Amino acid sequence: MTTLLRSLPASTAEMLGIFSDAALLRGALSFEAALAGAASAEGLLGADQAAAIEACCKLENFNVAELAAAAAHAGTLAIPLVAGLRRQVARIDQIAAGFVHLGATSQDVADTALMLQCKQGAAVIERDLSAMRKHLAVLARAHAQTPMLGRTLLQGALPITFGLKVSHWLAGLDAAAARLSREGQAVALQFGGAAGTRAGLGGKGREIAFRLAQRLELADPVLPWHAQRDRVAGLGTALAILIGALGKIARDIALLAQNEVAEAFEPLAVGRGGSSAMAHKRNPTGCQVALSAAFRAPGLAATLLSTLPCEHERGLGGWQAEAPVLAELFMLCHGALAAMLAVVAGLEVDTAAMLGNLKRAAGGTDFGEAASLVEAMLVARDTEF
Amino acid sequence: MTTLLRSLPASTAEMLGIFSDAALLRGALSFEAALAGAASAEGLLGADQAAAIEACCKLENFNVAELAAAAAHAGTLAIPLVAGLRRQVARIDQIAAGFVHLGATSQDVADTALMLQCKQGAAVIERDLSAMRKHLAVLARAHAQTPMLGRTLLQGALPITFGLKVSHWLAGLDAAAARLSREGQAVALQFGGAAGTRAGLGGKGREIAFRLAQRLELADPVLPWHAQRDRVAGLGTALAILIGALGKIARDIALLAQNEVAEAFEPLAVGRGGSSAMAHKRNPTGCQVALSAAFRAPGLAATLLSTLPCEHERGLGGWQAEAPVLAELFMLCHGALAAMLAVVAGLEVDTAAMLGNLKRAAGGTDFGEAASLVEAMLVARDTEF
Amino acid sequence: MTTLLRSLPASTAEMLGIFSDAALLRGALSFEAALAGAASAEGLLGADQAAAIEACCKLENFNVAELAAAAAHAGTLAIPLVAGLRRQVARIDQIAAGFVHLGATSQDVADTALMLQCKQGAAVIERDLSAMRKHLAVLARAHAQTPMLGRTLLQGALPITFGLKVSHWLAGLDAAAARLSREGQAVALQFGGAAGTRAGLGGKGREIAFRLAQRLELADPVLPWHAQRDRVAGLGTALAILIGALGKIARDIALLAQNEVAEAFEPLAVGRGGSSAMAHKRNPTGCQVALSAAFRAPGLAATLLSTLPCEHERGLGGWQAEAPVLAELFMLCHGALAAMLAVVAGLEVDTAAMLGNLKRAAGGTDFGEAASLVEAMLVARDTEF
Amino acid sequence: MTTLLRSLPASTAEMLGIFSDAALLRGALSFEAALAGAASAEGLLGADQAAAIEACCKLENFNVAELAAAAAHAGTLAIPLVAGLRRQVARIDQIAAGFVHLGATSQDVADTALMLQCKQGAAVIERDLSAMRKHLAVLARAHAQTPMLGRTLLQGALPITFGLKVSHWLAGLDAAAARLSREGQAVALQFGGAAGTRAGLGGKGREIAFRLAQRLELADPVLPWHAQRDRVAGLGTALAILIGALGKIARDIALLAQNEVAEAFEPLAVGRGGSSAMAHKRNPTGCQVALSAAFRAPGLAATLLSTLPCEHERGLGGWQAEAPVLAELFMLCHGALAAMLAVVAGLEVDTAAMLGNLKRAAGGTDFGEAASLVEAMLVARDTEF
Repeated sequence: MTTLLRSLPASTAEMLGIFSDAALLRGALSFEAALAGAASAEGLLGADQAAAIEACCKLENFNVAELAAAAAHAGTLAIPLVAGLRRQVARIDQIAAGFVHLGATSQDVADTALMLQCKQGAAVIERDLSAMRKHLAVLARAHAQTPMLGRTLLQGALPITFGLKVSHWLAGLDAAAARLSREGQAVALQFGGAAGTRAGLGGKGREIAFRLAQRLELADPVLPWHAQRDRVAGLGTALAILIGALGKIARDIALLAQNEVAEAFEPLAVGRGGSSAMAHKRNPTGCQVALSAAFRAPGLAATLLSTLPCEHERGLGGWQAEAPVLAELFMLCHGALAAMLAVVAGLEVDTAAMLGNLKRAAGGTDFGEAASLVEAMLVARDTEF
Repeated sequence: MTTLLRSLPASTAEMLGIFSDAALLRGALSFEAALAGAASAEGLLGADQAAAIEACCKLENFNVAELAAAAAHAGTLAIPLVAGLRRQVARIDQIAAGFVHLGATSQDVADTALMLQCKQGAAVIERDLSAMRKHLAVLARAHAQTPMLGRTLLQGALPITFGLKVSHWLAGLDAAAARLSREGQAVALQFGGAAGTRAGLGGKGREIAFRLAQRLELADPVLPWHAQRDRVAGLGTALAILIGALGKIARDIALLAQNEVAEAFEPLAVGRGGSSAMAHKRNPTGCQVALSAAFRAPGLAATLLSTLPCEHERGLGGWQAEAPVLAELFMLCHGALAAMLAVVAGLEVDTAAMLGNLKRAAGGTDFGEAASLVEAMLVARDTEF
Repeated sequence: MTTLLRSLPASTAEMLGIFSDAALLRGALSFEAALAGAASAEGLLGADQAAAIEACCKLENFNVAELAAAAAHAGTLAIPLVAGLRRQVARIDQIAAGFVHLGATSQDVADTALMLQCKQGAAVIERDLSAMRKHLAVLARAHAQTPMLGRTLLQGALPITFGLKVSHWLAGLDAAAARLSREGQAVALQFGGAAGTRAGLGGKGREIAFRLAQRLELADPVLPWHAQRDRVAGLGTALAILIGALGKIARDIALLAQNEVAEAFEPLAVGRGGSSAMAHKRNPTGCQVALSAAFRAPGLAATLLSTLPCEHERGLGGWQAEAPVLAELFMLCHGALAAMLAVVAGLEVDTAAMLGNLKRAAGGTDFGEAASLVEAMLVARDTEF
Repeated sequence: MTTLLRSLPASTAEMLGIFSDAALLRGALSFEAALAGAASAEGLLGADQAAAIEACCKLENFNVAELAAAAAHAGTLAIPLVAGLRRQVARIDQIAAGFVHLGATSQDVADTALMLQCKQGAAVIERDLSAMRKHLAVLARAHAQTPMLGRTLLQGALPITFGLKVSHWLAGLDAAAARLSREGQAVALQFGGAAGTRAGLGGKGREIAFRLAQRLELADPVLPWHAQRDRVAGLGTALAILIGALGKIARDIALLAQNEVAEAFEPLAVGRGGSSAMAHKRNPTGCQVALSAAFRAPGLAATLLSTLPCEHERGLGGWQAEAPVLAELFMLCHGALAAMLAVVAGLEVDTAAMLGNLKRAAGGTDFGEAASLVEAMLVARDTEF
């Protein structure tokens, strides 16, 4: 995910935008602006001073390359960002400059900016996941009675229906969506200050946190979570499970598209799925994107689990590893989802080939039980969703 | 976790028992017995025949070493187990023998036996986790106003209280317990037969599954889940997050117990924490167990994420990798939990050392905000739990 | 790998034996016996005293279950083992008892015992790997000119020969064997005492280490390596790469054995590869074993990489996690190797089906370049091996 | 590693440059240019035609954003790159355009471009690693006799010397350097064409590959390695082991720098290691960078192990996952190395504090054996290096 040439095939322009430098910086500045406003509402600074700070929290006031170099030297983005913001505020209001970043610490900015990105990212994923689940429900119903060969351990077994296979894909996405939705509710403000106690705010820490969360539209946690990172691990593993569920669909379709099986195919798209060497090839390019994500997700999720036992009130090395890893999971997840949404929406199904392969491999073609399982699944979903 | 000498320090005798050969075999036989009963209740075989099968489903009728060797040859435990069961039933009722394993497939037995183990394992973990959380709530309250040095990036920062540190540990366990409880509700019967369609049961598949789940006290899923493995991944990652939350507590205590810090210590226990070379040493042995589990959990959880994109109606290689890995996560989790429960229950806290280190390192000792965060946390928990 | 029922399909009886409780205990006792002998040869204790210690270092003097329980309490196997050994030596020679475990520490015993197991394990793997590579070289030559469809991205591409496919498998095993051999040379004695300085040996630490290594037939490292664990990581990743190379062969054969492709098959073996539900099925059971290992190896290897940054002179939690993980990699590796050796040795190849599928899918059948690549590969190997 | 703001603290500008879009594109164009030259030298096209192709292989002829979007659609960078190159060549020589990408496939370009980046990356790492090892050898010698407390399981044990601790760090880097050097020798040309047979080159495949490798200064492998990926896994795990060895140094220094221990510190640098909330803090920022890399490396290496069992002649999803992951390992490795080189070069050591902590914690201060181990280590290195 290191450069555009390598990251665009793996993600989408939309999700790359949400996790871009500009978006990260915008999130960090939103935090500083909202903090000034919240602290002002609690009387820690005047409304004019807050307005001066808010006025300077604009993306165009900062240069990404300079900030990146300064952050690399300082060890944290917040130091050069806050210093730069103070300089700019000082130009219009010397006193206001002293209130920039009031009571906050570097990790407050970093974590909150990440959470703002995650919230947007989760919304985009939920939007497309919902569309995909609708497609699959339609497909399952349409093929509830389409007989095909059930295959276990890569060997032909007994008849199923294509609708049953699709129902399983759908069940995987339903479960993954429920997990992601629950974990998404934990996306919360980070605000604790230097040692996580909300000191230096005249006893108004609780109130300021509440207002800050409201302004940023994030959950307001009882405790800051600088060193209790299950939110990140929970979100990351939920994304990894969703990626795995998409990878499952991709695996099945790629196997069905093999020349000798030829039962289902990705939609034809001009200029997609070709080969630089063989013009006749029709590669399962969407499945490739999803499977590639599925190869990368487990290692990324493992990293987010390995950083949980961090040291004291702010870990060394662990939490700093989390943001780029969680960002990659979002990017890979949306890349896989967008690719498979297109695949499923335009899937070509060869029911005659399904029947032919079934007849050659299995003793019979009775698929009654498979069809009734599809029915049961769809009825159960109608109740639930 | 390969042998008793290496697995007992890492787990507990109780959890090793739940995941023992005997327990696995007992679970598999429970499945076969309950299946006979359920199918009989739906009229597929006579009550006498079911009783004959049930009577033979006894642990003492099977030899683990022989079964293991036969399973290694066959590629699945179910084949020699079912064959052995049929032989024994045939001795008392020739016709009943034909109804053994009716409509089931190897994976039905394997997955359901695993789920029975997981259900027991989860109950044991929830029991001890509940005890641990009570201890921590008491400890947080007792030390709500005990000043100590907050440490970020392994450097002294500002004052906190020890109660606030404990509150964070508790918040981590609360969140992990909620996740584990939700994932535990997904522990479900597996019953789908050869291709996952519940064929060969005279159209009574749905009803037999319902009765089977009831008898085994497992959830009854709408669809079999042979190739939709998010249950296993969800449970495994929830265990890994809990292990990480325990590892966090262990990390902090081990750092506090360093000679030069000397603020908190594992309880003294005769014969524990010693050194084979230095009699004077007092090693943080409980923390070692939990941290060791925390090093192993991420890789194990990653495996359970990597098997999600399995092939068609039953994957090749992936699902077969899951059971031993999920079992290890249960074993490591309970080992870590039991070790840290003992550590927390008997934790020695040196409040004078805490104050001394704080005074040497920080500008002041004002801990008011920390204390009020502890109070807010405990009040919020009283509402929730 | 938790119990016999789950570990025997995944490994072999031979490798389970090498990593059994008995073998671990035998290794630990070998260390204590050899240490007494080496120290005696350097004049630190009398020959009679060394003989008394050596005489007590017998497996039958110890009870595994008791030792395991005591080790779980103590936090290390060495404490109860050394205590038990001292008691037994004291019965025959009170003074000798004082020389048991002279200058050693718990980790010396644990690491050296592990290394003794690894050395044996590596030898067994190299033996079977050598046999497998011979089989593959014969197979590559035999099928150098057997045309088949080359498949890229799971789609038919251009003609290759089956011999070329086998040559790639062989190249993977050749490279993996070279890596394993190099890492195997790092299998070394651990002997440093309490803080890794070889103190308490009258300045004879270097000489005793040399003699100890000789007696145990292990490499004698310049420095003890209690906290420098690249040996373990190097060995573990070499095993994981070998498992991956075996998994590659398994993946290809399983795909070739699909009903619709039907170009190659695992050998028929009575009672193997069957289904508990479908008597007609012929499952790729050997491939399943290898692929299952390949799903588990990456997470295990990752654990061995994650423990490298351990604390000071002996880490807390990290190194204790290594032994069971490295043991599992050995067990999985030999399970995969033995399974695939049988598959390759008896592989059924349907050259007519290969030609048929090729003709249906590709524009031509010209395989000249593929054949000459096989030739080049085999000639290059003749030079190298 | 997703954006500059997140990737620059984790890597270096130099390594980000080596793995930039521009460098990737330059590598891909080098491949196409060298291929034209090599094929021309073997008489497959005229020298003028080769010159026309070479003349168009210039970075400035291509637009990264357009290529990235087109590659995302096509599923591979090579398709739009080759198409664009053909269009440009056609403008100056219509016939030459037909020889662009002669006999090559997309993966040939992608893998070879990656290998060119890896070769440069490895050289940069070896350069700085060599400097770091020299620093450590000097430091080990200087402190061979500096007594300090040996610490095991985070508890004080017996005396060592600081030079011995440094010797262990050095031993870890020596071993890691040897591994990386060996794996670096496997960095090889990829050239096999559509199905890896070097078809379509008039029987000159072997010779063209030889010339191509020479021109690109890469090793010339006997076989193409499209589906035999141990090179990538070997390189990736070697980098992960090096990162772990750097993380070990970082872990130790961060622990020594704790307020209560205060034995060693990162060098002071204006604007580095500060806190956005506490001006007095001196954070171990270099150690943080290295430890952060050490948290990420295991999961990344695991991904490279998980893709080994790829399908047939070119895998689906697996190999496409490798390039960004291997690139990240290079970037994290150099970030960690550069950070720790600065830390070690300017390390502040408080020998009085070391002695004081030793006296308080251990029974004695005799460090003779530790000093002689340092001597033995340095002598052995003089022989070897």
